[in-house]
Amino acid sequence: MSIKAGIVGATGYAGLEIVRLLLGHPGVEITAVSSVSFTGKPLSEVYPSMAGIIDMILEDDKAVVAKSDVVFASLPHGLSEEIAAVCAAKGKLFIDMGADFRLNSEEDYKQWYGGAYAQPELHEAAVYGLPELFREKIKGARIIANPGCYPTSVALGLAPLLEKGLVTPGSIIVDAKSGVTGAGRGLSQNTHFPDCNESFAPYKIAQHRHTPEIEQTLSMIGGDPVTITFVPHLLPVNRGILSTIYAMPAAPLTLDELHALYTDRYGDEKFVRVMPGGGTVNINQVQFSNYCDISLHADPRTGRVIIASAIDNMVKGAAGQAVQNMNLACGLPEDSGLRLVPPAF
Amino acid sequence: MSIKAGIVGATGYAGLEIVRLLLGHPGVEITAVSSVSFTGKPLSEVYPSMAGIIDMILEDDKAVVAKSDVVFASLPHGLSEEIAAVCAAKGKLFIDMGADFRLNSEEDYKQWYGGAYAQPELHEAAVYGLPELFREKIKGARIIANPGCYPTSVALGLAPLLEKGLVTPGSIIVDAKSGVTGAGRGLSQNTHFPDCNESFAPYKIAQHRHTPEIEQTLSMIGGDPVTITFVPHLLPVNRGILSTIYAMPAAPLTLDELHALYTDRYGDEKFVRVMPGGGTVNINQVQFSNYCDISLHADPRTGRVIIASAIDNMVKGAAGQAVQNMNLACGLPEDSGLRLVPPAF
Amino acid sequence: MSIKAGIVGATGYAGLEIVRLLLGHPGVEITAVSSVSFTGKPLSEVYPSMAGIIDMILEDDKAVVAKSDVVFASLPHGLSEEIAAVCAAKGKLFIDMGADFRLNSEEDYKQWYGGAYAQPELHEAAVYGLPELFREKIKGARIIANPGCYPTSVALGLAPLLEKGLVTPGSIIVDAKSGVTGAGRGLSQNTHFPDCNESFAPYKIAQHRHTPEIEQTLSMIGGDPVTITFVPHLLPVNRGILSTIYAMPAAPLTLDELHALYTDRYGDEKFVRVMPGGGTVNINQVQFSNYCDISLHADPRTGRVIIASAIDNMVKGAAGQAVQNMNLACGLPEDSGLRLVPPAF
Amino acid sequence: MSIKAGIVGATGYAGLEIVRLLLGHPGVEITAVSSVSFTGKPLSEVYPSMAGIIDMILEDDKAVVAKSDVVFASLPHGLSEEIAAVCAAKGKLFIDMGADFRLNSEEDYKQWYGGAYAQPELHEAAVYGLPELFREKIKGARIIANPGCYPTSVALGLAPLLEKGLVTPGSIIVDAKSGVTGAGRGLSQNTHFPDCNESFAPYKIAQHRHTPEIEQTLSMIGGDPVTITFVPHLLPVNRGILSTIYAMPAAPLTLDELHALYTDRYGDEKFVRVMPGGGTVNINQVQFSNYCDISLHADPRTGRVIIASAIDNMVKGAAGQAVQNMNLACGLPEDSGLRLVPPAF
Repeated sequence: MSIKAGIVGATGYAGLEIVRLLLGHPGVEITAVSSVSFTGKPLSEVYPSMAGIIDMILEDDKAVVAKSDVVFASLPHGLSEEIAAVCAAKGKLFIDMGADFRLNSEEDYKQWYGGAYAQPELHEAAVYGLPELFREKIKGARIIANPGCYPTSVALGLAPLLEKGLVTPGSIIVDAKSGVTGAGRGLSQNTHFPDCNESFAPYKIAQHRHTPEIEQTLSMIGGDPVTITFVPHLLPVNRGILSTIYAMPAAPLTLDELHALYTDRYGDEKFVRVMPGGGTVNINQVQFSNYCDISLHADPRTGRVIIASAIDNMVKGAAGQAVQNMNLACGLPEDSGLRLVPPAF
Repeated sequence: MSIKAGIVGATGYAGLEIVRLLLGHPGVEITAVSSVSFTGKPLSEVYPSMAGIIDMILEDDKAVVAKSDVVFASLPHGLSEEIAAVCAAKGKLFIDMGADFRLNSEEDYKQWYGGAYAQPELHEAAVYGLPELFREKIKGARIIANPGCYPTSVALGLAPLLEKGLVTPGSIIVDAKSGVTGAGRGLSQNTHFPDCNESFAPYKIAQHRHTPEIEQTLSMIGGDPVTITFVPHLLPVNRGILSTIYAMPAAPLTLDELHALYTDRYGDEKFVRVMPGGGTVNINQVQFSNYCDISLHADPRTGRVIIASAIDNMVKGAAGQAVQNMNLACGLPEDSGLRLVPPAF
Repeated sequence: MSIKAGIVGATGYAGLEIVRLLLGHPGVEITAVSSVSFTGKPLSEVYPSMAGIIDMILEDDKAVVAKSDVVFASLPHGLSEEIAAVCAAKGKLFIDMGADFRLNSEEDYKQWYGGAYAQPELHEAAVYGLPELFREKIKGARIIANPGCYPTSVALGLAPLLEKGLVTPGSIIVDAKSGVTGAGRGLSQNTHFPDCNESFAPYKIAQHRHTPEIEQTLSMIGGDPVTITFVPHLLPVNRGILSTIYAMPAAPLTLDELHALYTDRYGDEKFVRVMPGGGTVNINQVQFSNYCDISLHADPRTGRVIIASAIDNMVKGAAGQAVQNMNLACGLPEDSGLRLVPPAF
Repeated sequence: MSIKAGIVGATGYAGLEIVRLLLGHPGVEITAVSSVSFTGKPLSEVYPSMAGIIDMILEDDKAVVAKSDVVFASLPHGLSEEIAAVCAAKGKLFIDMGADFRLNSEEDYKQWYGGAYAQPELHEAAVYGLPELFREKIKGARIIANPGCYPTSVALGLAPLLEKGLVTPGSIIVDAKSGVTGAGRGLSQNTHFPDCNESFAPYKIAQHRHTPEIEQTLSMIGGDPVTITFVPHLLPVNRGILSTIYAMPAAPLTLDELHALYTDRYGDEKFVRVMPGGGTVNINQVQFSNYCDISLHADPRTGRVIIASAIDNMVKGAAGQAVQNMNLACGLPEDSGLRLVPPAF
């Protein structure tokens, strides 16, 4: 019997990507989709790519909640809490693609997002849905905070080192680059094609809202508070995040030791691929898949280690990870609907 | 029980795309892959995107034939005939991605490709694998000539009109634009990134080898010899063909009549989508899927009809259609392994 | 002594391109720039690329007119007529980048643009500024209608044939492709980077407003009314128009004859380059320059001739041609400020 | 009277860019161009963009040296020394675009490039041509080592801090991203369009040959040996380098102090633009120009400063800087031929 899943905010990029992945999921039936801007229209009118595949009419969020056992919400921050409360009351699984449930500390949330927690108990119940780090908690969760795209790439890139306490405190720098779908479907001058094409720039330098989320996860992994420098850049491609991570090891570490550490840690993970020695990640090796590829590098001249971590921001960085979380929470095989082969070109 | 399939020339773009699609096919097991340039290496070394997904070693074509019930060959023209002969002798299904079996007339083949047919009886047995036009023949075929990418987009774009004899002879002009994967994996100056990026140009103007293939199919559809003007262009994107087709109807035709003609003809086809009135095809609505999208337009000022036809050149224009042909020839559901949802971005 | 030039609408793409070209013009001083959206701000705040180069504050159109001898207006259609009237009254040269003065027939203007001519005498005085065709008229003009980008590429591509009456009436089809700057700086969903990147589609099929302008020019050249089929496409590059033009010659024409015709016609033109036999135009050979490149091709199988014509839509298709017109009207060398070498990559 | 300039290796990207810039230089006449691969052909046959602009035949390097007062050499490393010797003997100015004369230490050269210095005295005479740092030396130079593209962006980005001794030793990390023209005109799989388009990856991580060159310059500026971590990435655009530079100040530094430091240092420089507070560099603001744009950022949470530095790798990172060096060495205005306005789109 299929799981009944609904998507609130289905016409945004992340929302549509959930629809796309669920259409290929053997254990799920999409029961409803909603949109604020296009209520009443067929989804396939907004996205003609969906013509003949899904002919559902866009409803409102209440209809989605009513018809679904699992509700995915892809909304601007601040709008998910209320829907989560309804789902919680009705015993439905709620998976939030936005930032509302990601930060444990309400103070952090206030500082970086500007609002307060109306229902703190929901936040306490919420689980941060990064399966490779918090799998067991996710299995029992009813509210799942799907991680941000940058935080996913960084946390997976650093976990093996931090779990072993191998990083010099204060030494982490993350230079990240994201494809433009990360900026969403909304229009803006810097994502207007002639302004964005053949361009490249950093943005929100040391001020991006994913900073506290990254630090929270890294701190949980290592047990000690971690502070990082985080600089994202906008990359003129559609999909993909590549985070180049710099860290000083607590003690000297050879490339072989580093490689062994990561292959040990991720050897059983289906969605993390540690590149063989000499290999280097590239976003075009993970696009349209749920993989996080990681390559490891040493700078013997300075002693630093350099970790390159690549994901598809729309899949492992959003919709794919959400489906992975749903699979875990619903007792399905973790890779159900996610055996996606990256096309390479 | 799974069909055993092998791919000769698996490291070319079309070959790898067949691998990718077959990995998601529920009724197929890939038994062997070959490559001339990389024999002995793992496929995932040539394409790191395949790491952890398929760890097969590249063999030679003989090994592929020996191990497989269905052999896909993605080779430069002139090299398939010999392998086809071996497959025919052993009763294996042979699907040729190249041009060796596409042209009925050996004279045409000599003129446009420069070689002769060593075994004419194989060519007589071969079936042109465009399912929407020649489905019944494909079902019994043992040698299938998988159509060229441009010819697929053009034949599907014009079939409904030609079947009814509604086109003025000599009036067809095809202005086609293809993504760069259509040029293959081999290096050349005009596909070097800085030369190709931000570029656009026609090539092989009125001289492209797909011209006789297009004309052969159009002639078979309509019963009368068709001569066209065909001009391809190289489009700085990875995937997609868009053919803009101009024709003068034999008698005046309204847009409504045109639309009715196409929706009638393709109403039962799973992989042809006729855009609703007012809609226009875009390659980004079919990329990574097996769809051929068609939109219909009238120019009341001149009386011409304009048909825009879009496919993913690597899927419906190559590997997807090959799988569709395999499905038909093997008695599987025609869309098995091909329920691919285009991502739209 | 320098010509005092001002630009109304300097923050649009065409407006900024005029600024850029005039900054390199030895005989011109920019005296004022205006913008509706950014009045009071420095131009270099809207375009940081201009920092340290031009530090002018954006004013209103009245200030531009008051301070300038030559006024370039880059405005949505319908807004230029009034400014032209003021310029005419004060004896200033007015060069309109928009459509207000391009169509001789008010009926055509009403049908395609939807407004009436408030001051018909201005339209009678206006000259269509395509120098290679109407050079002498431009020299004495005070109101110049700068041609549309598509019309420039098509008129130059067909002029030699039409001047000699060598085209079969009704046989012309123009399949044109434009870079995204042609759509302007305003935001829209189909020019949002993730929607536009890796996309390709026709638009306004047989309905584009440049159609009557193209036909008007072609009719003036040949002396007989010309009707064409015109289909534009949006190309995911920043700059460049390539028009692929199909025509049936009135009598058979060899490629050599065709080539001789064009090299004769354009031999003295500084900004038209007829590609040598075997050559093919590419937008990357004209980007950032004022050239119109033309290559000539024959389809002996159908008798058609095929002309490929490439320009930079922002230069020869807009700002460069406007400067060329200014040069002619002001008695400067026609290529002053326009000896721009295309970078090729 | 014009300076007679010749270009050895004119068909590579840097070579052609020198040709392009010199064509717009009021004080220079191009006397000869050479190529190994295309000797005897017109340059405009290799680059049709040059048709009608420069019709020179490609000769060999000896012809270039014989005919020119200034010789630019754009060659693979190891081939310039010999030509430099000839130029030195004949009193001609030699500007090397390659790496042969960049490193003071022969040991470094051997380690990173693999060859020895045949004529050490030439290397002692050579001047490192970064005008903003070594202007006075360049004025008297006869052999000029034109800096690498990455080193230019990094040295200009860090000079003001290092000159004042304001950086904690060992704290510098450079995460750099380059457009694909930086990889040259030669073909390779990773610059094949479908492999490169929509891709992004680091390469030569902590092993790039520009590392010793960067460290040499930074050490000269500050007086103490500087060691850095340097990671370049390949960016799927044609032109532009953006270096994101991380450093820990020796003592706390406010953003205002940082900004004042840079505007003081570069206030008189024509080709360095320090972005106003709140501004951020973007490669699309410098493309096709000789500018180096720099923006300054603080990370108060970690105390680090972040400097973003953007150039066009083909202009300030290669040909433009070479012309700037020629101007200095020949006593011309430093910006002669270099008043290039970046087009912004």
